Amino acid sequence: MVQKGLLIVLSGPSGAGKGTVCKALMPHVTDNTKLSVSCTTRNPREGEIEGVNYFFKSKDEFRQLIEEDQMLEWAEVYGNYYGTPRRYVEETLVKGHNVFLEIEMQGALQVRKKFPDCVLIFLVPPSLDELKSRILGRGSETEETFNLRFGAAADEMKYISQYDYVVVNDQVETAVEKVRAIMQAELCSVARNLEYYNSLIQEGK
Amino acid sequence: MVQKGLLIVLSGPSGAGKGTVCKALMPHVTDNTKLSVSCTTRNPREGEIEGVNYFFKSKDEFRQLIEEDQMLEWAEVYGNYYGTPRRYVEETLVKGHNVFLEIEMQGALQVRKKFPDCVLIFLVPPSLDELKSRILGRGSETEETFNLRFGAAADEMKYISQYDYVVVNDQVETAVEKVRAIMQAELCSVARNLEYYNSLIQEGK
Repeated sequence: MVQKGLLIVLSGPSGAGKGTVCKALMPHVTDNTKLSVSCTTRNPREGEIEGVNYFFKSKDEFRQLIEEDQMLEWAEVYGNYYGTPRRYVEETLVKGHNVFLEIEMQGALQVRKKFPDCVLIFLVPPSLDELKSRILGRGSETEETFNLRFGAAADEMKYISQYDYVVVNDQVETAVEKVRAIMQAELCSVARNLEYYNSLIQEGK
Repeated sequence: MVQKGLLIVLSGPSGAGKGTVCKALMPHVTDNTKLSVSCTTRNPREGEIEGVNYFFKSKDEFRQLIEEDQMLEWAEVYGNYYGTPRRYVEETLVKGHNVFLEIEMQGALQVRKKFPDCVLIFLVPPSLDELKSRILGRGSETEETFNLRFGAAADEMKYISQYDYVVVNDQVETAVEKVRAIMQAELCSVARNLEYYNSLIQEGK
Protein backbone atom coordinates (compact mmCIF):
# COMPACT_ATOMS: atom_id res chain seq x y z
CA MET A 1 0.00 0.00 0.00
CA VAL A 2 1.49 3.34 -1.06
CA GLN A 3 1.03 6.27 1.31
CA LYS A 4 -0.68 9.01 -0.75
CA GLY A 5 1.30 12.21 -1.32
CA LEU A 6 0.46 15.62 0.10
CA LEU A 7 -0.90 18.52 -1.92
CA ILE A 8 0.72 21.57 -0.32
CA VAL A 9 -0.53 25.00 -1.34
CA LEU A 10 1.57 28.05 -0.49
CA SER A 11 -0.48 31.21 -0.85
CA GLY A 12 -1.03 34.56 0.79
CA PRO A 13 -1.54 38.22 -0.04
CA SER A 14 0.36 39.94 -2.81
CA GLY A 15 3.70 41.10 -1.41
CA ALA A 16 4.05 38.32 1.17
CA GLY A 17 6.99 36.83 -0.71
CA LYS A 18 5.47 33.58 -2.02
CA GLY A 19 7.77 33.36 -5.03
CA THR A 20 10.91 34.03 -2.98
CA VAL A 21 10.03 31.44 -0.32
CA CYS A 22 9.09 28.86 -2.94
CA LYS A 23 12.37 29.35 -4.82
CA ALA A 24 14.40 29.08 -1.58
CA LEU A 25 12.45 26.00 -0.50
CA MET A 26 12.88 23.88 -3.61
CA PRO A 27 16.56 22.90 -3.11
CA HIS A 28 15.58 21.58 0.36
CA VAL A 29 12.73 19.27 -0.62
CA THR A 30 13.38 15.65 -1.50
CA ASP A 31 12.90 14.12 -4.96
CA ASN A 32 9.58 12.99 -3.58
CA THR A 33 8.15 16.54 -3.80
CA LYS A 34 7.26 18.00 -7.19
CA LEU A 35 6.61 21.65 -7.92
CA SER A 36 3.45 21.92 -9.97
CA VAL A 37 3.80 23.63 -13.33
CA SER A 38 0.99 26.05 -14.22
CA CYS A 39 -0.66 26.70 -17.56
CA THR A 40 -0.80 30.26 -18.88
CA THR A 41 -1.93 32.13 -21.96
CA ARG A 42 0.60 34.93 -21.56
CA ASN A 43 3.60 35.01 -23.86
CA PRO A 44 6.82 33.33 -22.68
CA ARG A 45 9.39 35.76 -21.26
CA GLU A 46 13.04 35.47 -22.20
CA GLY A 47 14.54 32.30 -20.78
CA GLU A 48 11.23 30.70 -19.80
CA ILE A 49 10.96 27.07 -20.82
CA GLU A 50 7.79 25.19 -21.81
CA GLY A 51 6.96 22.55 -19.17
CA VAL A 52 9.45 23.99 -16.67
CA ASN A 53 8.24 27.53 -15.97
CA TYR A 54 4.79 27.15 -17.53
CA PHE A 55 2.81 25.20 -20.03
CA PHE A 56 2.05 27.90 -22.61
CA LYS A 57 -1.45 27.61 -24.11
CA SER A 58 -3.58 29.63 -26.50
CA LYS A 59 -6.72 31.17 -25.06
CA ASP A 60 -8.84 28.66 -26.97
CA GLU A 61 -6.86 25.73 -25.60
CA PHE A 62 -7.14 27.12 -22.07
CA ARG A 63 -10.91 27.62 -22.34
CA GLN A 64 -11.23 24.07 -23.61
CA LEU A 65 -9.35 22.78 -20.50
CA ILE A 66 -11.67 24.77 -18.22
CA GLU A 67 -14.70 23.34 -19.97
CA GLU A 68 -13.41 19.78 -19.53
CA ASP A 69 -12.88 20.47 -15.79
CA GLN A 70 -9.16 19.92 -16.32
CA MET A 71 -8.14 23.00 -14.31
CA LEU A 72 -7.83 22.53 -10.54
CA GLU A 73 -7.96 26.31 -10.21
CA TRP A 74 -7.65 29.16 -12.65
CA ALA A 75 -7.91 32.92 -12.83
CA GLU A 76 -7.81 35.69 -15.37
CA VAL A 77 -5.16 38.24 -14.45
CA TYR A 78 -4.66 41.39 -16.55
CA GLY A 79 -6.31 39.70 -19.55
CA ASN A 80 -4.44 36.39 -19.38
CA TYR A 81 -5.42 33.01 -17.95
CA TYR A 82 -3.33 31.21 -15.35
CA GLY A 83 -4.19 27.83 -13.84
CA THR A 84 -3.14 24.46 -12.43
CA PRO A 85 -3.67 21.37 -14.57
CA ARG A 86 -5.65 18.81 -12.57
CA ARG A 87 -4.41 15.62 -14.19
CA TYR A 88 -0.74 16.24 -13.40
CA VAL A 89 -1.55 16.85 -9.73
CA GLU A 90 -3.77 13.79 -9.37
CA GLU A 91 -1.36 11.44 -11.12
CA THR A 92 1.57 12.65 -9.03
CA LEU A 93 -0.26 12.27 -5.69
CA VAL A 94 -1.41 8.72 -6.48
CA LYS A 95 2.24 7.73 -7.10
CA GLY A 96 2.95 8.79 -3.49
CA HIS A 97 4.72 12.03 -4.41
CA ASN A 98 3.92 15.37 -2.79
CA VAL A 99 2.86 18.25 -5.02
CA PHE A 100 3.75 21.83 -4.15
CA LEU A 101 1.64 24.71 -5.50
CA GLU A 102 2.49 28.39 -5.17
CA ILE A 103 -0.61 30.34 -6.16
CA GLU A 104 -2.80 33.36 -5.50
CA MET A 105 -5.39 33.20 -2.73
CA GLN A 106 -8.38 33.03 -5.02
CA GLY A 107 -6.86 29.87 -6.55
CA ALA A 108 -5.93 28.37 -3.18
CA LEU A 109 -9.53 28.50 -2.03
CA GLN A 110 -10.65 26.85 -5.29
CA VAL A 111 -8.15 24.03 -4.67
CA ARG A 112 -9.51 23.52 -1.14
CA LYS A 113 -12.96 22.88 -2.63
CA LYS A 114 -11.72 20.27 -5.11
CA PHE A 115 -9.11 18.69 -2.77
CA PRO A 116 -10.41 19.14 0.80
CA ASP A 117 -7.40 17.33 2.28
CA CYS A 118 -4.82 19.63 0.74
CA VAL A 119 -2.57 21.58 3.14
CA LEU A 120 -3.15 25.33 2.84
CA ILE A 121 -0.33 27.55 4.06
CA PHE A 122 -0.93 31.28 4.38
CA LEU A 123 2.28 33.25 4.00
CA VAL A 124 2.07 36.69 5.58
CA PRO A 125 4.41 39.64 5.73
CA PRO A 126 5.58 40.42 9.29
CA SER A 127 3.39 43.55 9.33
CA LEU A 128 1.24 45.72 7.09
CA ASP A 129 3.99 48.38 7.20
CA GLU A 130 6.48 45.86 5.85
CA LEU A 131 3.97 44.84 3.17
CA LYS A 132 3.68 48.48 2.16
CA SER A 133 7.42 48.89 1.68
CA ARG A 134 7.71 45.58 -0.21
CA ILE A 135 5.06 46.60 -2.72
CA LEU A 136 6.71 50.02 -3.10
CA GLY A 137 10.12 48.33 -3.37
CA ARG A 138 9.10 46.76 -6.66
CA GLY A 139 9.38 50.25 -8.09
CA SER A 140 6.78 49.55 -10.74
CA GLU A 141 3.76 50.95 -8.97
CA THR A 142 1.88 54.17 -9.58
CA GLU A 143 -0.06 55.62 -6.64
CA GLU A 144 -3.21 54.12 -8.07
CA THR A 145 -1.89 50.57 -8.54
CA PHE A 146 -0.20 50.76 -5.13
CA ASN A 147 -3.48 51.61 -3.42
CA LEU A 148 -5.17 48.81 -5.33
CA ARG A 149 -2.57 46.21 -4.39
CA PHE A 150 -2.19 47.31 -0.80
CA GLY A 151 -5.95 47.46 -0.23
CA ALA A 152 -6.41 43.99 -1.74
CA ALA A 153 -3.60 42.51 0.37
CA ALA A 154 -4.96 43.97 3.60
CA ASP A 155 -8.39 42.68 2.65
CA GLU A 156 -7.08 39.20 1.91
CA MET A 157 -5.83 38.83 5.51
CA LYS A 158 -9.37 38.02 6.58
CA TYR A 159 -9.22 34.68 4.75
CA ILE A 160 -6.71 33.31 7.31
CA SER A 161 -9.41 31.23 8.97
CA GLN A 162 -9.84 29.16 5.80
CA TYR A 163 -6.19 28.09 5.91
CA ASP A 164 -4.47 25.35 7.91
CA TYR A 165 -1.24 27.16 8.77
CA VAL A 166 0.14 30.67 8.92
CA VAL A 167 3.82 31.28 8.24
CA VAL A 168 5.16 34.75 8.95
CA ASN A 169 7.73 35.66 6.33
CA ASP A 170 10.06 37.78 8.44
CA GLN A 171 13.17 35.98 7.19
CA VAL A 172 13.13 33.75 4.13
CA GLU A 173 15.24 30.99 5.81
CA THR A 174 12.91 30.83 8.81
CA ALA A 175 9.83 30.76 6.58
CA VAL A 176 11.35 27.94 4.50
CA GLU A 177 12.14 25.95 7.66
CA LYS A 178 8.55 26.33 8.84
CA VAL A 179 7.08 25.20 5.53
CA ARG A 180 9.36 22.15 5.61
CA ALA A 181 8.29 21.40 9.20
CA ILE A 182 4.62 21.64 8.20
CA MET A 183 5.16 19.17 5.35
CA GLN A 184 6.98 16.73 7.64
CA ALA A 185 4.36 17.03 10.38
CA GLU A 186 1.47 16.51 7.96
CA LEU A 187 3.12 13.34 6.68
CA CYS A 188 3.04 12.05 10.30
CA SER A 189 -0.59 13.07 10.86
CA VAL A 190 -2.81 10.25 12.08
CA ALA A 191 -5.96 11.60 10.39
CA ARG A 192 -4.14 11.58 7.05
CA ASN A 193 -2.74 8.06 7.47
CA LEU A 194 -5.29 6.10 9.45
CA GLU A 195 -6.04 3.68 6.61
CA TYR A 196 -2.32 3.08 6.18
CA TYR A 197 -1.72 2.49 9.89
CA ASN A 198 -4.68 0.14 10.15
CA SER A 199 -3.20 -1.94 7.34
CA LEU A 200 0.10 -2.13 9.28
CA ILE A 201 -1.71 -3.23 12.45
CA GLN A 202 -3.54 -5.93 10.47
CA GLU A 203 -0.21 -7.15 9.05
CA GLY A 204 1.19 -7.40 12.58
CA LYS A 205 -1.54 -9.75 13.73
CA MET B 1 -1.37 39.23 23.82
CA VAL B 2 0.84 36.19 24.57
CA GLN B 3 0.50 33.20 22.28
CA LYS B 4 -0.32 30.23 24.57
CA GLY B 5 2.28 27.44 24.74
CA LEU B 6 1.80 23.92 23.42
CA LEU B 7 1.36 20.87 25.61
CA ILE B 8 3.18 18.12 23.70
CA VAL B 9 2.76 14.54 24.87
CA LEU B 10 5.18 11.89 23.61
CA SER B 11 3.82 8.44 24.27
CA GLY B 12 3.58 5.00 22.71
CA PRO B 13 3.89 1.33 23.55
CA SER B 14 6.54 0.01 25.91
CA GLY B 15 9.75 -0.55 23.93
CA ALA B 16 9.10 2.21 21.37
CA GLY B 17 12.04 4.23 22.72
CA LYS B 18 10.20 7.18 24.33
CA GLY B 19 12.93 7.84 26.89
CA THR B 20 15.73 7.71 24.31
CA VAL B 21 13.94 10.05 21.88
CA CYS B 22 13.04 12.47 24.67
CA LYS B 23 16.64 12.60 25.94
CA ALA B 24 17.98 13.17 22.40
CA LEU B 25 15.35 15.84 21.74
CA MET B 26 15.96 18.06 24.75
CA PRO B 27 19.24 19.66 23.62
CA HIS B 28 17.45 20.73 20.41
CA VAL B 29 14.46 22.50 21.91
CA THR B 30 14.60 26.19 22.73
CA ASP B 31 14.47 27.66 26.22
CA ASN B 32 10.81 28.16 25.47
CA THR B 33 10.09 24.43 25.89
CA LYS B 34 10.10 22.90 29.36
CA LEU B 35 10.25 19.19 30.13
CA SER B 36 7.61 18.40 32.71
CA VAL B 37 8.83 16.80 35.92
CA SER B 38 6.70 13.93 37.23
CA CYS B 39 5.80 13.04 40.80
CA THR B 40 6.52 9.52 42.04
CA THR B 41 6.31 7.53 45.23
CA ARG B 42 9.16 5.19 44.34
CA ASN B 43 12.50 5.67 46.08
CA PRO B 44 15.11 7.87 44.37
CA ARG B 45 17.77 5.90 42.47
CA GLU B 46 21.43 6.83 42.75
CA GLY B 47 22.09 10.20 41.15
CA GLU B 48 18.43 11.18 40.81
CA ILE B 49 17.72 14.73 41.94
CA GLU B 50 14.49 16.02 43.51
CA GLY B 51 12.77 18.46 41.13
CA VAL B 52 14.97 17.45 38.18
CA ASN B 53 14.28 13.76 37.63
CA TYR B 54 11.17 13.54 39.79
CA PHE B 55 9.33 15.15 42.65
CA PHE B 56 9.55 12.39 45.27
CA LYS B 57 6.38 12.07 47.36
CA SER B 58 5.07 9.75 50.06
CA LYS B 59 2.04 7.66 49.15
CA ASP B 60 -0.11 9.78 51.47
CA GLU B 61 1.07 13.01 49.83
CA PHE B 62 0.39 11.55 46.37
CA ARG B 63 -3.11 10.38 47.30
CA GLN B 64 -3.82 13.86 48.67
CA LEU B 65 -2.77 15.41 45.32
CA ILE B 66 -5.07 13.02 43.44
CA GLU B 67 -7.95 13.91 45.73
CA GLU B 68 -7.40 17.64 45.13
CA ASP B 69 -7.42 17.00 41.33
CA GLN B 70 -3.82 18.21 41.21
CA MET B 71 -2.65 15.33 38.98
CA LEU B 72 -3.10 15.80 35.25
CA GLU B 73 -2.64 12.06 34.87
CA TRP B 74 -1.41 9.34 37.16
CA ALA B 75 -0.97 5.59 37.31
CA GLU B 76 0.06 2.91 39.73
CA VAL B 77 2.92 0.84 38.32
CA TYR B 78 4.32 -2.13 40.25
CA GLY B 79 2.94 -0.74 43.50
CA ASN B 80 4.17 2.86 43.08
CA TYR B 81 2.37 6.00 41.91
CA TYR B 82 3.61 8.13 39.00
CA GLY B 83 1.93 11.27 37.75
CA THR B 84 2.10 14.75 36.22
CA PRO B 85 1.44 17.73 38.49
CA ARG B 86 -1.29 19.86 36.92
CA ARG B 87 -0.37 23.26 38.36
CA TYR B 88 3.16 23.30 36.91
CA VAL B 89 1.81 22.48 33.43
CA GLU B 90 -0.94 25.11 33.52
CA GLU B 91 1.28 27.87 34.85
CA THR B 92 3.98 27.17 32.26
CA LEU B 93 1.53 27.18 29.31
CA VAL B 94 -0.07 30.46 30.34
CA LYS B 95 3.39 32.10 30.33
CA GLY B 96 3.63 31.14 26.65
CA HIS B 97 6.10 28.28 27.17
CA ASN B 98 5.61 24.83 25.66
CA VAL B 99 5.49 21.84 28.01
CA PHE B 100 6.84 18.47 26.94
CA LEU B 101 5.54 15.28 28.58
CA GLU B 102 6.97 11.79 28.04
CA ILE B 103 4.49 9.35 29.54
CA GLU B 104 2.79 5.97 29.20
CA MET B 105 -0.24 5.63 26.93
CA GLN B 106 -2.77 5.30 29.73
CA GLY B 107 -1.59 8.70 31.02
CA ALA B 108 -1.55 10.29 27.56
CA LEU B 109 -5.22 9.52 27.06
CA GLN B 110 -6.02 10.99 30.50
CA VAL B 111 -4.20 14.20 29.49
CA ARG B 112 -6.22 14.39 26.27
CA LYS B 113 -9.41 14.44 28.36
CA LYS B 114 -8.22 17.26 30.62
CA PHE B 115 -6.41 19.25 27.88
CA PRO B 116 -8.24 18.53 24.60
CA ASP B 117 -5.90 20.82 22.65
CA CYS B 118 -2.70 19.03 23.67
CA VAL B 119 -0.61 17.49 20.88
CA LEU B 120 -0.46 13.69 21.21
CA ILE B 121 2.45 11.98 19.49
CA PHE B 122 2.47 8.21 19.21
CA LEU B 123 5.99 6.84 18.98
CA VAL B 124 6.13 3.38 17.42
CA PRO B 125 8.90 0.89 16.81
CA PRO B 126 9.52 0.27 13.09
CA SER B 127 7.97 -3.21 13.38
CA LEU B 128 6.66 -5.68 15.94
CA ASP B 129 9.77 -7.82 15.33
CA GLU B 130 11.96 -4.87 16.24
CA LEU B 131 9.84 -4.26 19.33
CA LYS B 132 10.37 -7.89 20.34
CA SER B 133 14.14 -7.61 20.14
CA ARG B 134 14.16 -4.27 21.99
CA ILE B 135 12.23 -5.71 24.92
CA LEU B 136 14.50 -8.78 24.96
CA GLY B 137 17.56 -6.51 24.64
CA ARG B 138 16.85 -5.07 28.06
CA GLY B 139 17.99 -8.44 29.38
CA SER B 140 15.83 -8.16 32.46
CA GLU B 141 12.82 -10.11 31.23
CA THR B 142 11.66 -13.61 32.14
CA GLU B 143 9.53 -15.43 29.55
CA GLU B 144 6.47 -14.48 31.54
CA THR B 145 7.21 -10.75 31.84
CA PHE B 146 8.28 -10.68 28.17
CA ASN B 147 4.95 -12.13 27.04
CA LEU B 148 3.16 -9.64 29.26
CA ARG B 149 5.08 -6.63 27.93
CA PHE B 150 4.98 -7.71 24.29
CA GLY B 151 1.28 -8.53 24.41
CA ALA B 152 0.48 -5.18 26.01
CA ALA B 153 2.58 -3.27 23.45
CA ALA B 154 0.94 -5.00 20.49
CA ASP B 155 -2.44 -4.31 22.03
CA GLU B 156 -1.64 -0.63 22.59
CA MET B 157 -1.13 -0.12 18.84
CA LYS B 158 -4.90 0.04 18.41
CA TYR B 159 -5.01 3.38 20.25
CA ILE B 160 -3.27 5.12 17.31
CA SER B 161 -6.55 6.67 16.18
CA GLN B 162 -6.77 8.69 19.42
CA TYR B 163 -3.45 10.38 18.69
CA ASP B 164 -2.62 13.35 16.46
CA TYR B 165 0.67 12.12 15.01
CA VAL B 166 2.60 8.91 14.58
CA VAL B 167 6.40 8.98 14.57
CA VAL B 168 8.17 5.79 13.59
CA ASN B 169 11.30 5.39 15.69
CA ASP B 170 13.56 3.68 13.16
CA GLN B 171 16.47 6.03 13.88
CA VAL B 172 16.57 8.27 16.93
CA GLU B 173 17.84 11.31 14.96
CA THR B 174 15.01 11.00 12.40
CA ALA B 175 12.42 10.58 15.14
CA VAL B 176 13.76 13.66 16.97
CA GLU B 177 13.61 15.69 13.75
CA LYS B 178 9.99 14.67 13.21
CA VAL B 179 8.95 15.58 16.76
CA ARG B 180 10.61 18.99 16.30
CA ALA B 181 8.79 19.47 12.98
CA ILE B 182 5.46 18.61 14.61
CA MET B 183 6.05 21.19 17.36
CA GLN B 184 6.99 23.86 14.82
CA ALA B 185 4.01 23.07 12.59
CA GLU B 186 1.55 23.11 15.49
CA LEU B 187 2.82 26.54 16.51
CA CYS B 188 1.87 27.74 12.98
CA SER B 189 -1.56 26.08 13.05
CA VAL B 190 -4.43 28.45 12.29
CA ALA B 191 -6.93 26.58 14.49
CA ARG B 192 -4.59 26.97 17.45
CA ASN B 193 -3.94 30.67 16.85
CA LEU B 194 -7.10 32.11 15.38
CA GLU B 195 -7.75 34.40 18.35
CA TYR B 196 -4.16 35.64 18.15
CA TYR B 197 -4.34 36.29 14.38
CA ASN B 198 -7.66 38.07 14.70
CA SER B 199 -6.10 40.41 17.24
CA LEU B 200 -3.27 41.16 14.77
CA ILE B 201 -5.77 41.87 11.98
CA GLN B 202 -7.67 44.23 14.30
CA GLU B 203 -4.43 46.04 15.15
CA GLY B 204 -3.71 46.48 11.43
CA LYS B 205 -6.97 48.31 10.81
